[in-house]
Amino acid sequence: MEHTLDVVTLGEAMIRLSPPSFQRLEQATSLDMRVGGAELNVAVGGARLGLKTAWVSKLPDNPLGRFVANKAREHGVDVSHIVWTKGERMGLYFVEFGAQPRPSSVLYDRADSAIGRMKPGDFDWPAIFSGARLLHISGITPALGQSCAEASLEAAEAGHAAGCLVSVDVNYRAKLWTEAEANSVMTQLMAHTDILITTEEDTRRVFGIEAPDYRDVARELQAKFGLKAVAVTLRETISVWRNRWSAFALAGDQLYEAPSYEVEVVDRLGAGDSFTAGFLWGYVQGDVGKGVAYGTAFSALKHSTPGDFNWGSLEEVEALVKGQGLRIQR
Amino acid sequence: MEHTLDVVTLGEAMIRLSPPSFQRLEQATSLDMRVGGAELNVAVGGARLGLKTAWVSKLPDNPLGRFVANKAREHGVDVSHIVWTKGERMGLYFVEFGAQPRPSSVLYDRADSAIGRMKPGDFDWPAIFSGARLLHISGITPALGQSCAEASLEAAEAGHAAGCLVSVDVNYRAKLWTEAEANSVMTQLMAHTDILITTEEDTRRVFGIEAPDYRDVARELQAKFGLKAVAVTLRETISVWRNRWSAFALAGDQLYEAPSYEVEVVDRLGAGDSFTAGFLWGYVQGDVGKGVAYGTAFSALKHSTPGDFNWGSLEEVEALVKGQGLRIQR
Amino acid sequence: MEHTLDVVTLGEAMIRLSPPSFQRLEQATSLDMRVGGAELNVAVGGARLGLKTAWVSKLPDNPLGRFVANKAREHGVDVSHIVWTKGERMGLYFVEFGAQPRPSSVLYDRADSAIGRMKPGDFDWPAIFSGARLLHISGITPALGQSCAEASLEAAEAGHAAGCLVSVDVNYRAKLWTEAEANSVMTQLMAHTDILITTEEDTRRVFGIEAPDYRDVARELQAKFGLKAVAVTLRETISVWRNRWSAFALAGDQLYEAPSYEVEVVDRLGAGDSFTAGFLWGYVQGDVGKGVAYGTAFSALKHSTPGDFNWGSLEEVEALVKGQGLRIQR
Amino acid sequence: MEHTLDVVTLGEAMIRLSPPSFQRLEQATSLDMRVGGAELNVAVGGARLGLKTAWVSKLPDNPLGRFVANKAREHGVDVSHIVWTKGERMGLYFVEFGAQPRPSSVLYDRADSAIGRMKPGDFDWPAIFSGARLLHISGITPALGQSCAEASLEAAEAGHAAGCLVSVDVNYRAKLWTEAEANSVMTQLMAHTDILITTEEDTRRVFGIEAPDYRDVARELQAKFGLKAVAVTLRETISVWRNRWSAFALAGDQLYEAPSYEVEVVDRLGAGDSFTAGFLWGYVQGDVGKGVAYGTAFSALKHSTPGDFNWGSLEEVEALVKGQGLRIQR
Amino acid sequence: MEHTLDVVTLGEAMIRLSPPSFQRLEQATSLDMRVGGAELNVAVGGARLGLKTAWVSKLPDNPLGRFVANKAREHGVDVSHIVWTKGERMGLYFVEFGAQPRPSSVLYDRADSAIGRMKPGDFDWPAIFSGARLLHISGITPALGQSCAEASLEAAEAGHAAGCLVSVDVNYRAKLWTEAEANSVMTQLMAHTDILITTEEDTRRVFGIEAPDYRDVARELQAKFGLKAVAVTLRETISVWRNRWSAFALAGDQLYEAPSYEVEVVDRLGAGDSFTAGFLWGYVQGDVGKGVAYGTAFSALKHSTPGDFNWGSLEEVEALVKGQGLRIQR
Amino acid sequence: MEHTLDVVTLGEAMIRLSPPSFQRLEQATSLDMRVGGAELNVAVGGARLGLKTAWVSKLPDNPLGRFVANKAREHGVDVSHIVWTKGERMGLYFVEFGAQPRPSSVLYDRADSAIGRMKPGDFDWPAIFSGARLLHISGITPALGQSCAEASLEAAEAGHAAGCLVSVDVNYRAKLWTEAEANSVMTQLMAHTDILITTEEDTRRVFGIEAPDYRDVARELQAKFGLKAVAVTLRETISVWRNRWSAFALAGDQLYEAPSYEVEVVDRLGAGDSFTAGFLWGYVQGDVGKGVAYGTAFSALKHSTPGDFNWGSLEEVEALVKGQGLRIQR
Repeated sequence: MEHTLDVVTLGEAMIRLSPPSFQRLEQATSLDMRVGGAELNVAVGGARLGLKTAWVSKLPDNPLGRFVANKAREHGVDVSHIVWTKGERMGLYFVEFGAQPRPSSVLYDRADSAIGRMKPGDFDWPAIFSGARLLHISGITPALGQSCAEASLEAAEAGHAAGCLVSVDVNYRAKLWTEAEANSVMTQLMAHTDILITTEEDTRRVFGIEAPDYRDVARELQAKFGLKAVAVTLRETISVWRNRWSAFALAGDQLYEAPSYEVEVVDRLGAGDSFTAGFLWGYVQGDVGKGVAYGTAFSALKHSTPGDFNWGSLEEVEALVKGQGLRIQR
Repeated sequence: MEHTLDVVTLGEAMIRLSPPSFQRLEQATSLDMRVGGAELNVAVGGARLGLKTAWVSKLPDNPLGRFVANKAREHGVDVSHIVWTKGERMGLYFVEFGAQPRPSSVLYDRADSAIGRMKPGDFDWPAIFSGARLLHISGITPALGQSCAEASLEAAEAGHAAGCLVSVDVNYRAKLWTEAEANSVMTQLMAHTDILITTEEDTRRVFGIEAPDYRDVARELQAKFGLKAVAVTLRETISVWRNRWSAFALAGDQLYEAPSYEVEVVDRLGAGDSFTAGFLWGYVQGDVGKGVAYGTAFSALKHSTPGDFNWGSLEEVEALVKGQGLRIQR
Repeated sequence: MEHTLDVVTLGEAMIRLSPPSFQRLEQATSLDMRVGGAELNVAVGGARLGLKTAWVSKLPDNPLGRFVANKAREHGVDVSHIVWTKGERMGLYFVEFGAQPRPSSVLYDRADSAIGRMKPGDFDWPAIFSGARLLHISGITPALGQSCAEASLEAAEAGHAAGCLVSVDVNYRAKLWTEAEANSVMTQLMAHTDILITTEEDTRRVFGIEAPDYRDVARELQAKFGLKAVAVTLRETISVWRNRWSAFALAGDQLYEAPSYEVEVVDRLGAGDSFTAGFLWGYVQGDVGKGVAYGTAFSALKHSTPGDFNWGSLEEVEALVKGQGLRIQR
Repeated sequence: MEHTLDVVTLGEAMIRLSPPSFQRLEQATSLDMRVGGAELNVAVGGARLGLKTAWVSKLPDNPLGRFVANKAREHGVDVSHIVWTKGERMGLYFVEFGAQPRPSSVLYDRADSAIGRMKPGDFDWPAIFSGARLLHISGITPALGQSCAEASLEAAEAGHAAGCLVSVDVNYRAKLWTEAEANSVMTQLMAHTDILITTEEDTRRVFGIEAPDYRDVARELQAKFGLKAVAVTLRETISVWRNRWSAFALAGDQLYEAPSYEVEVVDRLGAGDSFTAGFLWGYVQGDVGKGVAYGTAFSALKHSTPGDFNWGSLEEVEALVKGQGLRIQR
Repeated sequence: MEHTLDVVTLGEAMIRLSPPSFQRLEQATSLDMRVGGAELNVAVGGARLGLKTAWVSKLPDNPLGRFVANKAREHGVDVSHIVWTKGERMGLYFVEFGAQPRPSSVLYDRADSAIGRMKPGDFDWPAIFSGARLLHISGITPALGQSCAEASLEAAEAGHAAGCLVSVDVNYRAKLWTEAEANSVMTQLMAHTDILITTEEDTRRVFGIEAPDYRDVARELQAKFGLKAVAVTLRETISVWRNRWSAFALAGDQLYEAPSYEVEVVDRLGAGDSFTAGFLWGYVQGDVGKGVAYGTAFSALKHSTPGDFNWGSLEEVEALVKGQGLRIQR
Repeated sequence: MEHTLDVVTLGEAMIRLSPPSFQRLEQATSLDMRVGGAELNVAVGGARLGLKTAWVSKLPDNPLGRFVANKAREHGVDVSHIVWTKGERMGLYFVEFGAQPRPSSVLYDRADSAIGRMKPGDFDWPAIFSGARLLHISGITPALGQSCAEASLEAAEAGHAAGCLVSVDVNYRAKLWTEAEANSVMTQLMAHTDILITTEEDTRRVFGIEAPDYRDVARELQAKFGLKAVAVTLRETISVWRNRWSAFALAGDQLYEAPSYEVEVVDRLGAGDSFTAGFLWGYVQGDVGKGVAYGTAFSALKHSTPGDFNWGSLEEVEALVKGQGLRIQR
């Protein structure tokens, strides 16, 4: 069967506002305006790599809502399943970029957004999943509220029922829910999940699983939830401007480990989502190892550009995987 | 008695975000960040002219709330009576600047702001009004919600009780309440009001008063509500970039009319509030005619600068009133 | 039959670079980067009004080519028929914005662009026109070179053969070809044309037709080429910052005249293409009068925003047609 | 004899700092940085039109002094006669751009600049004037201080002695000296002056000459000081953004009058200096009428670009003189 | 006794102009406009941490002077004791940001500023110190000129007489005075000084004191001048973009040492003043150790933001002192 | 003999367009506009250090061509030998700045530029070389096309014939020609070359010469082509933002080695050309060692500023050579 969509994602995207040049918000006189949100970031990243992706969400029918849909569409993401609403608001977040010893920080203003009020029945899942191969959501979507948790479970069930793979990124956000709440909902979600993407910290906080060797963490997750694949990203924060970044995946009893990249950090937001995009790109081709390698390289590249979205290309990922150096390209 | 404060204002201020260079929001990649809000604009304008002013409001204790307080303080406005809250949001609004035939437009995102949840008892009015001469609020403050209407009435009553003059700008906003709702609340407010500032349109919509001669509108308001003074601003929109602007006031049976200024419009937001600031500046000196003349000149100057706030000075107002020309000053 | 595409356009788009704030190119230290091109402008305008539009062109497979396709896609224009090439260049143009008595000006750097080298056979027209309703090209496309003229004729013939309406905007560019060359090619093109959009000056220069009453110019064109509709735009340049703008159309023996708009000019590039988009929007609904009225209003609005593209909406056009005033919208 | 220099000018240039987008200085967070100064403006304007020009001044040997020399050199002005000093400062001025009813304004910070401390003997005039055709100074140069007045007279005497024409622009600045001081020094300067450029107002204030017909003002100046030519610029300030601009000249008994241009004002600083540059360009060719016509057109164009310098070209001046319209050039 | 002011500072602040993005001044086309000056930086930093601070200075009554006062007031610094003057100038300085091997550099243009002409008797010290707890000045204030040295001594004497603590930061500036001059004046100042803040280099240059162990330097200063506390900041310049920063203090025979922070340098100006602010914040609470720890953390944070002022908060300082990591805060 | 010109360079310069703040081209909304080109960079660098330099090229007579000439002239480079053409285009290039692991990259759009069409006979070499001391070209100039290779050889021959030294920088560009083509032309050029500047990699690719010790590479080149001097630059790319940079030269049997600088990279384009400028500055004074030392320091400084041009000064080079540290200069 020919798939008309490789990856469908469901979640919130927000207007992202950030002061330029390391200014604090209190100092700012203008804010750079972009778009970000975990599941949209994945859809954009997938599209950049050549996948057919769609992003499902609810947006207010005003200039800010259109701004978000435009930016998704700019990258070729299918926005035809977005539900447009009247009178609701667009979520926003504000980013301050740091320098050691001041970490970067995010201030959210996302309460009462259109998507934050979604509930089961809002989307025509059978139509959306017809011809689709994979559904991806992150733990942020169910964390937006009780009805969002229900709608997320509805989506995962519907995806599974339609024969789609279901991929979940734990993405625990302590500002949105408690560890206990997350544990309850995410555990339900695991019943429909094939692919889990996480970090050591999120796994410990949400599932209470930890081990001295991170490989054992993956093995325990795999066993507990019967997952087809578990991928774990690994970040070492050398300084605010310099991080070390890697990932590995476990599929069956095979372990795939990516090299570690030392990255100069222009903007680390969305890096994890770039890994997911690249990992799923490999996974839907049936090549988990390529998924880990390309996902890690793609997300390493993400750190070098401003914004949540990854503006890189498959050619650039391939060059990096093959060991292209750092000299100017001309 | 020496007054320690000339003008106290109560109301909402918001972060104001606007794309530069006549861009639409959908085109923007950065937004200019300023602060605006009717009553804060009046407090700033009054301070620029030399009055001791305070602005009373509720702000979230986060960088956005501090941004607003900082900008008020930058102009010398007393912010010591602000109530700081945890976990609430800052209201925002987005401005698009137009060019004929496209009018400028504002998109509000103010629901659930800290101040929008104020209620009676939030402020220690006796302490605030001790030593104060005048309270000013606009019709936006009670329009923010039922409890805001109650809190506005509480403030007006407390002001009157403390011997303050009470000034009200009708400022009808159809997006916030119906004409019937406005009529009900504003009529109650009139019982405590000494000075009313309005436009012909707002008077018709809120109080159902209209007349062929705008002077008769003022006379009818004066008679109906027993007002010490009624001031009416007059705007003619020649084009988006060129307006004609004037005002008059009725105090007792004396009518004061300002000249009409043809203004080149850089940014017309806050112009009415600049009139109010200048008018009150004159009024508290006991010179209504000077209030009308200076208020009109001060607000004409407001159109020439970006932002809701008026960055002009008393010297500039005086020069304009005295007929300074348009040649470059050097 | 359900049409899957309302309007297909064929032509060149370029990277548009312009110094901000009325600077001359020689003064500039940065250039605003946008995209423009007559036929893409029409496709974007049509999409903004709700039509399903596609833009057909050739682009180099490099960041500049992708930039152009991205911006088309941002507005929902179908870019799936673009032919991507290796090793060719993207055309550019530089715009200087003027102030009386200095007119705005454009410096083209478009030679040897990928699309400028197109030739018959480059596009799979039967596939493109399957399900399409209308083909639109401007006189710029055939003017790009001999093989471009041939490819333009091929497209028009294929469009006609596939049952599409064919629309042509004369758009004479003296820097690209002589009046004699234009006359020869455009006359051939007329054999396949249903709808002609032009100005009085272009009609005189390309077809040698002129008359004291511009309505007679339209009648003569209609008669000579057997056109279903002729639309003529009318611009009066009061000053560089203020123009008067209108249009009319002749269909059968019915004349439709739009009101005249006095516009404050932020950026007049692409205004004619906005008229075309709006006119075709009405025409494909079978309402020529609405096409003239909405096309004129849509293009009047275009002058108020930077860039060739029209970021307006159908709602805004309707408000303008219905006589909405110039006061700030809030 | 072949002239190696057409025009030598002597005077102060300053760093010019201005807030963008009609902001007041108090609002600004960045300032545009340019260079301006009457005599340098003339040298740059002359060079743009094709004259060989040199600017003589004193500059501090620091980045700000080099900035000024660089910008002169960028236009081909000969800066080899500049005297570089240690430990002195560069003069600055701050410009605020207005909108009716707020005029634009300039705040000077020029005290104690390197050139403000010049004195007779600072420059090697015989070497400078060898091969030169004309010296131009404005009334600002002697107004900078007593020793500057002496150095200005020294220059004019030396110029005359070397066979150069001497041109003077009255340019009265009330902040620098009184009318009586100006009268005394400028009258001495007239003894060495061939060409006088002035306005009606400056003539009245400095020389006490006025008449109902401005032509008579020119005639009286001519008679009183035995001038070869008198040129007078005429500005009408319709609004801050719209001026009317013209000029005329009297040479012998021949009167030359330029057409009047209605200009949209981006930046009017330096416009008078552009007239001088164009007038001298014509004069040194022996064509006073062309000088008036081209000088007026060149200065009308100046209003359309930011900065004191004129970035126009002889081709543009010719097109304007020949009646080119306002339509976009492409 | 309730103190109405915690810290009063006396000194010069200047308009600070810097090219963005590592440009040299000669390359710049715009300059970022901020405010800086050692004593104002301390007052702002103290206010950010919650102290009641006032800054005493002289400012010209023009837009540049008001700009400086506004920015102080924005942070809640009391500016009511500023003396406003007519006809004097505002000092300026220009900053170029470097990258290894090019150090950052500052070009001052501060001669003849209003404050640079201060003299004894300019300020009403008894009124200023009534209710104040501490006076702080740096060695820059007396270095501005002979009369400034006298006025500084007057202030210190008056402060002591009024029962204030007196704090002095050596801040030796070789461009303002010689080591001998500094030694003479600073030694006089020490007679009234309780708290000395310095570096090893400044101590050697101004007081001729040096020792292999920096703790001995502090002990020698303490003994020689009978100081209540000596604090010394320690900077290691690993590269231009990376510094190591620490401090210690000696009070009585107790030594307090802060940890060393490796900082990524956005802007190091004002860092020493941030230490002073934090140190005094602790000192006036009677906790020297907290002063050293918080002062060092507060100044480490200062390096991460543009401008001389510290926009951090007490909460951020506490988080850093408690060992918060570098991961993004959200 | 007094030389009227120290260094003449021949080659292409282009408009350089780059997105700010590490954006990719696809993300950009504005591009910084500068000028760059190997031989012009050398001429500018030489002029900054005090040499009399001229740059010979062909430019289109339009605003872009004038932009380039203006920027050369701004630094005092003699542009009087430029040949201006009609109807040809200006070459462009686009720079994306990277962050590890994404290298910076350059996209050229230089085909069919005016200079790319140069041919023998275009320049009056005898006139140009009269009074000149040295001709410098890089391997890019002959690589622009067959006729450019011929014109380059013509220039080198004419230079030698006129008694000039001839300096060549290998500067191999794989996008412009093959190694075989480069070998053929560059070998011919060596017959007229006195000074060769190269890297190890370029030497291997163009001349097929390599050796374990880079000094032996220089010795082999010297021997093979009978060169007066061979200079080799050495770059180590620690990361994209941090490089190590050095150089050495061989003249006769004397080897001169510069220290190695660790540089924080703002913009590395043009660094090699800065070395050449500094090296030639020393060489024409007869001091090869100083050339190596100053050239290396000058080019180390280049990395710290945006743009191809070096805005440093001889004083700064001297300070660096003498071991000035990294502390802020004030």
